[in-house]
Amino acid sequence: MSRSLLWGLLFACLSALPAARGAEPQRWVLSSASENRRTETFHLDGARLTPQQPNWRVDQKTLHGGRQEGCELLVVDNGRLRITLIPTRGMSVLEVVAGDLRLGWKSPVAEVVHPREINLHSRGGLGWLEGFNEWLVRCGLESNGHPGTDKFINNTGDEASLELTLHGRIGNIPASEVEVVVDPAPPHRITVRGTVWERSFYGPHLKLQTELSTEPGSLEFRIADTITNHGAQEQEFEILYHANYGAPLLQEGAEFLAPVQRVVPFNAQAAKSVAKYATFAGPTVGFTEEVYCLYPLADDQHRTLIALRNKAADRGASIAFNVQELPHLTLWKNTAAEADGYVTGLEPGTNFPNNRRIERKLGRVPKLAPGATRTATLDFALLPDAAAVKGTADRIARLQSRQKPVIETAPEKKE
Amino acid sequence: MSRSLLWGLLFACLSALPAARGAEPQRWVLSSASENRRTETFHLDGARLTPQQPNWRVDQKTLHGGRQEGCELLVVDNGRLRITLIPTRGMSVLEVVAGDLRLGWKSPVAEVVHPREINLHSRGGLGWLEGFNEWLVRCGLESNGHPGTDKFINNTGDEASLELTLHGRIGNIPASEVEVVVDPAPPHRITVRGTVWERSFYGPHLKLQTELSTEPGSLEFRIADTITNHGAQEQEFEILYHANYGAPLLQEGAEFLAPVQRVVPFNAQAAKSVAKYATFAGPTVGFTEEVYCLYPLADDQHRTLIALRNKAADRGASIAFNVQELPHLTLWKNTAAEADGYVTGLEPGTNFPNNRRIERKLGRVPKLAPGATRTATLDFALLPDAAAVKGTADRIARLQSRQKPVIETAPEKKE
Amino acid sequence: MSRSLLWGLLFACLSALPAARGAEPQRWVLSSASENRRTETFHLDGARLTPQQPNWRVDQKTLHGGRQEGCELLVVDNGRLRITLIPTRGMSVLEVVAGDLRLGWKSPVAEVVHPREINLHSRGGLGWLEGFNEWLVRCGLESNGHPGTDKFINNTGDEASLELTLHGRIGNIPASEVEVVVDPAPPHRITVRGTVWERSFYGPHLKLQTELSTEPGSLEFRIADTITNHGAQEQEFEILYHANYGAPLLQEGAEFLAPVQRVVPFNAQAAKSVAKYATFAGPTVGFTEEVYCLYPLADDQHRTLIALRNKAADRGASIAFNVQELPHLTLWKNTAAEADGYVTGLEPGTNFPNNRRIERKLGRVPKLAPGATRTATLDFALLPDAAAVKGTADRIARLQSRQKPVIETAPEKKE
Repeated sequence: MSRSLLWGLLFACLSALPAARGAEPQRWVLSSASENRRTETFHLDGARLTPQQPNWRVDQKTLHGGRQEGCELLVVDNGRLRITLIPTRGMSVLEVVAGDLRLGWKSPVAEVVHPREINLHSRGGLGWLEGFNEWLVRCGLESNGHPGTDKFINNTGDEASLELTLHGRIGNIPASEVEVVVDPAPPHRITVRGTVWERSFYGPHLKLQTELSTEPGSLEFRIADTITNHGAQEQEFEILYHANYGAPLLQEGAEFLAPVQRVVPFNAQAAKSVAKYATFAGPTVGFTEEVYCLYPLADDQHRTLIALRNKAADRGASIAFNVQELPHLTLWKNTAAEADGYVTGLEPGTNFPNNRRIERKLGRVPKLAPGATRTATLDFALLPDAAAVKGTADRIARLQSRQKPVIETAPEKKE
Repeated sequence: MSRSLLWGLLFACLSALPAARGAEPQRWVLSSASENRRTETFHLDGARLTPQQPNWRVDQKTLHGGRQEGCELLVVDNGRLRITLIPTRGMSVLEVVAGDLRLGWKSPVAEVVHPREINLHSRGGLGWLEGFNEWLVRCGLESNGHPGTDKFINNTGDEASLELTLHGRIGNIPASEVEVVVDPAPPHRITVRGTVWERSFYGPHLKLQTELSTEPGSLEFRIADTITNHGAQEQEFEILYHANYGAPLLQEGAEFLAPVQRVVPFNAQAAKSVAKYATFAGPTVGFTEEVYCLYPLADDQHRTLIALRNKAADRGASIAFNVQELPHLTLWKNTAAEADGYVTGLEPGTNFPNNRRIERKLGRVPKLAPGATRTATLDFALLPDAAAVKGTADRIARLQSRQKPVIETAPEKKE
Repeated sequence: MSRSLLWGLLFACLSALPAARGAEPQRWVLSSASENRRTETFHLDGARLTPQQPNWRVDQKTLHGGRQEGCELLVVDNGRLRITLIPTRGMSVLEVVAGDLRLGWKSPVAEVVHPREINLHSRGGLGWLEGFNEWLVRCGLESNGHPGTDKFINNTGDEASLELTLHGRIGNIPASEVEVVVDPAPPHRITVRGTVWERSFYGPHLKLQTELSTEPGSLEFRIADTITNHGAQEQEFEILYHANYGAPLLQEGAEFLAPVQRVVPFNAQAAKSVAKYATFAGPTVGFTEEVYCLYPLADDQHRTLIALRNKAADRGASIAFNVQELPHLTLWKNTAAEADGYVTGLEPGTNFPNNRRIERKLGRVPKLAPGATRTATLDFALLPDAAAVKGTADRIARLQSRQKPVIETAPEKKE
């Protein structure tokens, strides 16, 4: 038997063994550039590992065919929620499903496209859209937002120009390290960690440490990320969590709920409809996107809460986050025809999705000192019934009760 | 034995079983993004499947080494013709061989380059040429023709500019679905179907359904394609069948035969030699391409017939197609040195290969309504002897007999 | 057992057998596009093949995880030196290690990035830097040097413009043919040959035949390359050997030794420090690169010798090369912070690393006639102690003794 095959077999067996035992969390390394390994398929079974709480599993598979060839999926099923992550696409989350409630949408891009198929510079810097179909994709890190020319300091110390591409690179970089951790102590929290490096010589050396975790039987999960500047100099960065929702949660009469200090239309197109920014139309052929820039209100711990609910107010989904970590919130309304992608995006971020050139001018591009980190912790919940929706709506109303929202009727002055 | 290996073995076995039996055509799925499968190697044997007509086979293999790593080839041998398709490169046809007669050419690009190696934007939008070595490659679908700036409507509803790249993307997109179908009834027609998606969010959602079929023992085969607009809005598209022929069929004194209403030189360079547009020079170092735009004459069923024959008129190849489907015919003469690619292209299309900006202005960019389709059916024949060549030449002459061709001496006014 | 698996096993066994026996050199083909093969792992063992000289080995492995997925490494261990080549990245050399002496550096790019991850046009034509971490990477062949606009003759015979990207493509093209040859006669020289094609239809057809060889037990190795123009027309080309050294050899007080006729600062930034061009600073946060263009002095056989030595002058590394083959020598000083890449490059080449447009204007872009070749032979030595350093320094001093170096204080006039 060939050496490569033997290694493959040995490796497949080893990878099914936890890296640590006992009271410590159990840890399985699925993929690791530093240890030179990658797992083709993987399976963890709650019934075997935590017999007292058997109803969960974790599975990895590799996709085949077309532009998805070689792309990995990692599915965490907590017994109530099934969360599908894409390690090959920067740890994006393809969808989250709980019965008839689904976080996700139906993009015209039906395959999970391997980043090696994507040219971010295509179609005037919109190449990112050829792979865009995730429920949650991070935008950044060197930049996010609209494509267009910006300046940078090149290797010779001179100011040079570069073409930034839509929403940056992080969603199209394969994770270098992927591991699953299961807490041996009840409630046996399941955690997936992925490390994605966005780095270049004479460029940024940014590490994104992602973490998604959930408890068996829960309708909630958390994303807790850390961005670290591994360079020796101060480094600009941007991150935006592009969370996208389609039918059936999104429908005519669905509503966006958020406690807001101020709402600003992104452009003249959005300004026309700012009065009804929080309600959604049904699928509309030829609809042009409407984008709103929001400044959310938060509690004393700086947490805010936003939600999307269906027309009957008996299904919904919410996101709680910290406005010191993610002070800007973008609402992207794209109620186009189903075939073109009927979707809305709820997008907490460090900035709004203008080109970085504009965001920098307006003071919304943060910097990381050498070795410094920035964290973002987002708590997601599925709201399966009217009571859950009402509970969330009430909490949002309480946050809003402190002040009336200011609704701007004109876009920000940008250039 | 690891799970992945077991699946691999099981899968390899299953994939050699037909998907349907009995009077129905027998169908084998080789690759499928929707079913998440890909076949590394595959073999169908006429002797086993149709004992009364044993002399055919179908084989798939995967290429290795250099820039071809991971590229698939699918070889249909009908007992007389050996047709090599490239599922990984948009279902292009690498070559068709029958004894000493070969449809194909010798490109300086000797490897079958994997699309993930290609940057279409390289060398001023000519990156497509780094993989160009097929006998037949489709050019399109969002656009084909020369690289250069064109306009489009971007996500914000604004007109924006993009750089179109030479001959578009379809020839560098791996097929999402590939299947082989064999008719259980004589003459046991063998059909290869491939589905190639050219799609992007905020972009075209075009499906190309390709079909290549042939009968055991025949010197003919058919390509029957369907393009469908899966978007909710009207969509421009272009397709051009770039069929390329080199030595020995192409040689000094070889002749191009076509019934033409009008011949227009593509540019000033071609205009110089328009009088002898239908005859070929031998390999010529430093030859600059000459391109002619032809409006073919057709019969009452709108079918036209074109051919290439060698100097002795005892070897040739023909293409029949429908001028309502493909009204424009481009003749590309590139009788350069053998080392640089001695080749001519016979190119039926929806348009001529100007940049889409020009073709649109001149009214030659068709549109598809939502859900609408456009078909193209091309019949290819190898002409193995003088009689076959004469028969084809006579049919072409009959089509021409209705009117004398108009030979323009100046290029079309373009901008 | 599936056909593919059987072939895989058979192949793995066959590939461990030499292609020829007896007095002839023993040859193993590891990868071959022309023979459609690729080896996942490979091992040669000196103890088995040359029992009288058992202390060497050759190993190939494939990298996994992150952006290095599928990248091959080939490690030649001559018993004293361990040389790691990267066939997938144009036969670059990742590092050379002998005990505590290492040729190489610590780039912020920690993974060996697969070329399919790289877009050379990224970041204003600096995409090459996303994979830059090798000790030795060849820059070329159509062009090397700074990114920027240049002209070329396109398919229509017209002058068109293209954006050249930093240091060209050759370092990001997988080798098409890779073989290992071991001389059965003492001293059993081990040779790795790799063929890398840089070719495009309507573009260059350049073949780079690389060869790296060493003898068991030696602290020296040789790179002997041949570039051939396989096109039918004269072809410009450029090659530069970008050899990069970091700590601990590079340190404050380390010194560059070279016999030079003339030293010209590359730009105003370098001009400021030209007086101390040959000595190095320690890691310096925010250091801007300093580049010097050198015209080396050579002996009567046109060989020159350059070296880098540490502060104590008891560790060093040298390069000998032929100034008729490589007349221009670039010294790149980048004594940045360790985290940003503390490194210096010693870069013999056909040209200096200006954009090709400038190099052409200044008469430094060579051409190859059809079928013509250009060779480059470079001898590398590790200098493990003060005696070895002194021996090399003395040889360099003798070459310099013929004339005093001219140190220019202003950059060359370029445009």
